[in-house]
Amino acid sequence: MKEIPSSSWLQDRPFKEVTVQKKELLKPDGRKLWLYSSVNTPLEHGPAPSPSSEAVNANPHLRWHPLRGEWGTYAGYRQNRPFLPPDNYNPLAPTTNAEFPTELPSGNYDVAVFQNRFPSLSLEAHSPPESIVPTAPGKGECEVVVFTQDSKQSLGTLPLEHIKLLIDVWADRYSELGSKPDIQYVMPFENRGVEMGVTLHHPHGQIYAYDHVPPVPALELENQKKHFEAYGRGLLEDHIRAELEDGSRIVVDSETMLAFIPAFARYPYEVWLAPKRAAPSIADLTHLERDDFARVLKTLLYKYDHLFEARPLFPYLMVMHQAPTDGFEHPEAHLHLEFYPPYRTPDKLKYLAGTELGAGLVAMDNLPENTAKDLQAVVVPEF
Amino acid sequence: MKEIPSSSWLQDRPFKEVTVQKKELLKPDGRKLWLYSSVNTPLEHGPAPSPSSEAVNANPHLRWHPLRGEWGTYAGYRQNRPFLPPDNYNPLAPTTNAEFPTELPSGNYDVAVFQNRFPSLSLEAHSPPESIVPTAPGKGECEVVVFTQDSKQSLGTLPLEHIKLLIDVWADRYSELGSKPDIQYVMPFENRGVEMGVTLHHPHGQIYAYDHVPPVPALELENQKKHFEAYGRGLLEDHIRAELEDGSRIVVDSETMLAFIPAFARYPYEVWLAPKRAAPSIADLTHLERDDFARVLKTLLYKYDHLFEARPLFPYLMVMHQAPTDGFEHPEAHLHLEFYPPYRTPDKLKYLAGTELGAGLVAMDNLPENTAKDLQAVVVPEF
Repeated sequence: MKEIPSSSWLQDRPFKEVTVQKKELLKPDGRKLWLYSSVNTPLEHGPAPSPSSEAVNANPHLRWHPLRGEWGTYAGYRQNRPFLPPDNYNPLAPTTNAEFPTELPSGNYDVAVFQNRFPSLSLEAHSPPESIVPTAPGKGECEVVVFTQDSKQSLGTLPLEHIKLLIDVWADRYSELGSKPDIQYVMPFENRGVEMGVTLHHPHGQIYAYDHVPPVPALELENQKKHFEAYGRGLLEDHIRAELEDGSRIVVDSETMLAFIPAFARYPYEVWLAPKRAAPSIADLTHLERDDFARVLKTLLYKYDHLFEARPLFPYLMVMHQAPTDGFEHPEAHLHLEFYPPYRTPDKLKYLAGTELGAGLVAMDNLPENTAKDLQAVVVPEF
Repeated sequence: MKEIPSSSWLQDRPFKEVTVQKKELLKPDGRKLWLYSSVNTPLEHGPAPSPSSEAVNANPHLRWHPLRGEWGTYAGYRQNRPFLPPDNYNPLAPTTNAEFPTELPSGNYDVAVFQNRFPSLSLEAHSPPESIVPTAPGKGECEVVVFTQDSKQSLGTLPLEHIKLLIDVWADRYSELGSKPDIQYVMPFENRGVEMGVTLHHPHGQIYAYDHVPPVPALELENQKKHFEAYGRGLLEDHIRAELEDGSRIVVDSETMLAFIPAFARYPYEVWLAPKRAAPSIADLTHLERDDFARVLKTLLYKYDHLFEARPLFPYLMVMHQAPTDGFEHPEAHLHLEFYPPYRTPDKLKYLAGTELGAGLVAMDNLPENTAKDLQAVVVPEF
């Protein structure tokens, strides 16, 4: 059986005995819903709703790109869903009008996670169609993580304790999804802003769980492994040490966690946030590291949201990279968040075009040392 | 010395003896300009202008991304250029007002190519800065290809003969750039539409010439090489044969060239355009293939521009992949254009976000077989 690294944190302070409560519910269409709360009072909630009572029969499939040597996932969902909600309908808010159920019940909880109704990957996937390229079932899981019941908040405006609960939720999802036999990689992420294609503005992220290690993490892990085998130390750990010595690109520093614009950034305001030690996954973080993580994350997001006056909710893609859940030890892995913000000035986007998408060579017309100064200059209150 | 494959076409009908004329000029800031014409009358033109007389001292550098194991190119150009042109100023149109010179002279020519004033790569690059990651000079060339003097045209509305001239120009740039000792890969491309970040709407493309084979072509060539060594045939040639047999995703078919949505498409309306035989580069195409190329390209662009009524100038990124110019034979290479259009419906963009940029697994919610039907349904006049 696979052993998923959630041990160090659990030994430190067991999950269920402390501040986090969790309850699993079943939606009328067969999907699962998990409610999380940091309070010690019992979780209270109405029945698990769904915008539709139709059973979800997701059957995505993979196709092989022979020239790139990579899989892509395909599903025949079309955009014409016969659903006409009222103007203020928010599917990620708690249900208040039983006539128009949302994805979440009313009740007393802080963070909610549910299985996506139109998933790009599903553990139920079966019988892929034949094609002139190899195909396979699109096995995996796609979950939606609702950060709060309050649609007016954003990740960075939540109280520290709430952010820390979210970190615990990410760790719990990593352990629960990663323990499934078919799941080899778990990636939480957040697309934020219309510039990233977001249409629902309620604060939320997603988690994709893959049945293989996908290309970008695979590339990063391969280079981390080479470094670990050559030097007996982590590649990112060594890079973080060099960033600390250099100092010019550091955005937020704390005892155990660091946020910085890497010397090799591919977006003008790209920031990486990582523990200074090579913790392989978010489930490996100690309580002290989780406290630091919450504070450094909140500080970074405050800086982002105050960088450009015209962009109070600074858009970005945030992805979490960590150890695969393939049952093997991954001493080369080092948990980190990568933030890719699309803006290069208050009103100019950084587009990925010819040389980026067609050749894979990114072209930057500003230096990480300069953009780091802009983020360093944003004064942040004590959190 | 390197031998760049322009032989078959030149043997077929030598460049300078036929319809294409070419003249090299020097701009006041030291950059080169080439004028091309398909007519047999002498090229006539005014002096080569530049929007600025300041010498271009481009010095981009490369930085190594240790986790991805890839180079990126960095240059400290900022966006504050002290230049206030009149409202209707178009730097890619021929100069008409000597007070505000553009990039091109007035005169009698059809296509113009010049060195980019703010290049991401330059053969003059030297002395890269030290960093905590490996750095190198950002060696290469960045050229702008102006398709026509007429800013009201687009690539697809040009006459067939004009498009064929452009194909000859691409072939000439491939041979000329590829023959330079430092250049190992030549990639023409076109970003079209504000959705792709384009700010100049005069019809034009670009050419990047790299001192190494960049990651995406390198990946494609590696898989093509494996296939060629295993089967003695081209991977794309075999795929094209399978697409022809299947038939469901063909967009434009001709005797020697094919346009199709590949079974492994990563954008809803992604089209590949390639010769049916495995011609390694655009310089290897015969005159018959160039005629077909022009007609298939014009037909495809007509279909794109008439696919969505609301998008008469359908945006896309177009990249040309072909054999490296590293002095070695590349029997595995197979010239092709890849078109990546950002729209998935007349008013919905396909965004690259979490799973695409963070994991490298593309997620498609429509099938290539369906989108191919939409392009097949567009009726095209005889060209």
